[in-house]
Amino acid sequence: MTKLSQSVLDILHDHRESIDRLDAILVYTLSERFRHTKAIGKLKAKNDLPPSDPDRESYQISRLEDLSDEAGLDPIFAKNLLNFIIQEVIQHHKKHKL
Amino acid sequence: MTKLSQSVLDILHDHRESIDRLDAILVYTLSERFRHTKAIGKLKAKNDLPPSDPDRESYQISRLEDLSDEAGLDPIFAKNLLNFIIQEVIQHHKKHKL
Repeated sequence: MTKLSQSVLDILHDHRESIDRLDAILVYTLSERFRHTKAIGKLKAKNDLPPSDPDRESYQISRLEDLSDEAGLDPIFAKNLLNFIIQEVIQHHKKHKL
Repeated sequence: MTKLSQSVLDILHDHRESIDRLDAILVYTLSERFRHTKAIGKLKAKNDLPPSDPDRESYQISRLEDLSDEAGLDPIFAKNLLNFIIQEVIQHHKKHKL
């Protein structure tokens, strides 16, 4: 292995270590987020509140666009990701209703 | 509005505030993660390294399963989420190659 390729592999390794740490943050943050959406689901069911809230969802989408802009994240990706997570929350609620 | 429903709305509001804070963490963490995947993409292209690395991907999936287990997150959701993010990374790389 040449000196150059070893140095390239070292840089690659450092990036991957950062990605692994960031993935741990993502997993634990998502787990905490689901704790709150589960609690909201139970609270709404117990108090006969409608499960979906279009005003809240509009607010979340608009806020996510601003946050993505600030963070330099593609806003279309951020919106798709929020939809992906919301779908998971809906699936989870359905599963628990069966 | 009854006293009960006000208290319920207060609890709902608190959960939503937490979700909003957690979403900010997710957006900034993802932005940081993309910074690393972009750097890896450039590094690989510059040094003629193959863009995909099945061993690394297997490691990531297995690690994500362990992390999800520890964090109490549905491992299927975590795996789907990783695939969603990886697809975005691939799309991003394709866009920059055009």
